[in-house]
Amino acid sequence: MTVAVAVVDAETPGNVGTIARSMKNFGFSELLLVDPPELDPEGEAYGFAGQAREDILPNAREVTFDHLAENYHTVGCTAITNEDGSNHVRYPFATPAELAAELSAVVGSGEGEDSGEGEDSGTDVAVVFGRERVGLTNDELARLDRICSIPASADYPVLNLGQAATIVLYELRNLGVAETQLPEITDRASPREVEGLHDQFDDYLAAVDHPEEKRAKARRMFRRLLGRAYPTGREVTTLRGLLRRAGQKLEREE
Amino acid sequence: MTVAVAVVDAETPGNVGTIARSMKNFGFSELLLVDPPELDPEGEAYGFAGQAREDILPNAREVTFDHLAENYHTVGCTAITNEDGSNHVRYPFATPAELAAELSAVVGSGEGEDSGEGEDSGTDVAVVFGRERVGLTNDELARLDRICSIPASADYPVLNLGQAATIVLYELRNLGVAETQLPEITDRASPREVEGLHDQFDDYLAAVDHPEEKRAKARRMFRRLLGRAYPTGREVTTLRGLLRRAGQKLEREE
Repeated sequence: MTVAVAVVDAETPGNVGTIARSMKNFGFSELLLVDPPELDPEGEAYGFAGQAREDILPNAREVTFDHLAENYHTVGCTAITNEDGSNHVRYPFATPAELAAELSAVVGSGEGEDSGEGEDSGTDVAVVFGRERVGLTNDELARLDRICSIPASADYPVLNLGQAATIVLYELRNLGVAETQLPEITDRASPREVEGLHDQFDDYLAAVDHPEEKRAKARRMFRRLLGRAYPTGREVTTLRGLLRRAGQKLEREE
Repeated sequence: MTVAVAVVDAETPGNVGTIARSMKNFGFSELLLVDPPELDPEGEAYGFAGQAREDILPNAREVTFDHLAENYHTVGCTAITNEDGSNHVRYPFATPAELAAELSAVVGSGEGEDSGEGEDSGTDVAVVFGRERVGLTNDELARLDRICSIPASADYPVLNLGQAATIVLYELRNLGVAETQLPEITDRASPREVEGLHDQFDDYLAAVDHPEEKRAKARRMFRRLLGRAYPTGREVTTLRGLLRRAGQKLEREE
């Protein structure tokens, strides 16, 4: 139950390095190379790989296309699809987001590198990318199980190989990464805290002598603004304190 | 009402070229450069830009950071956020998907390059990326309006500059691209067509003398399989024809 990344016949070592780095960014570790260019430890592949130069690149396995087709549930990525079901080579296809939803139901989530050895059961998936200029050939795609295509501009849908792989791995990140670097934002202000700020705003309007008949409208403006911003508790506390200062200073000066 | 892309103090021309290409892939055209490296038309920036070498790169504008901060609703992208609201420099943040949802409500969708000149009204947005090694500084981020961060592996969340920009632009694609290269898949088989296939499957079971008491179970298996695959009309027609052949051939031979 792992998701491997396969690159077929890449020409540019730098692209292999870029893909290795993105794999590490999104928690994937198994890199399979079919007919790769030479990956010189002093060259661009390692130069572009970031921290993936320490594990993913040196552990990459050279395999045949037959090996891929026979041992994995294979997803071929291509910018160019068929227009309709009269041709099955590149149709139907899934977008990367649809692929993520599909695969989530089939492989576990967030197993990442730690449990990579736990070859329990289920489907081993290989996401397959083709060569720089022409991608995967029709003959290759015909042997793969699923087609994936990134929605892009009709005028110029062909992404650079490294960029295409990065987007697909980004969309599949929940299959690779158990925990991202991002904290959950759990400190939004409570409705009671927000109401406290609105009360303070009301006091402020009085303190600065805003015309009484206009205060309700000003309060509504402020309510709509805060309503869109979902402030944190800290923001509400700070704003409340800042508004209080005007009243306090005016009182002292009167 | 445009979405511009700004790159601050990039060191590597290749990254600027990669970003230009991704902009074109996702329908954005306005590239703003603060303290850029030299972009030699014979060098890596143009080499990596694909078709963006024809328009986006030569039309890129060199601007100051002050110009950005003063004239755009600015979104600063960073891999590293603050942990909570006690520090406002990198908190709260939006993921690229959340940013896309926010901005969709503020800027038009799919205007792309065609109507780039139509400076009607509303918010001009600049999505701002920083230098390769250290990204945007705290002082820079403090001047920007919104923070965006890509969820990635807690172990290694720092993406290459070109990859980070590609993911954000991919998520914002609906703001840049009116029409993608992907056809809509509108030729799924109708329920009636699928039922026709199930009837054919039933005939097949009889034709090949599948034990009568096991047929209902086999039919359910086949129904579950097709139910997950959402076949196209063409697939159903072809499968139906293939199943019919067995019965026809058996009849002839009897």
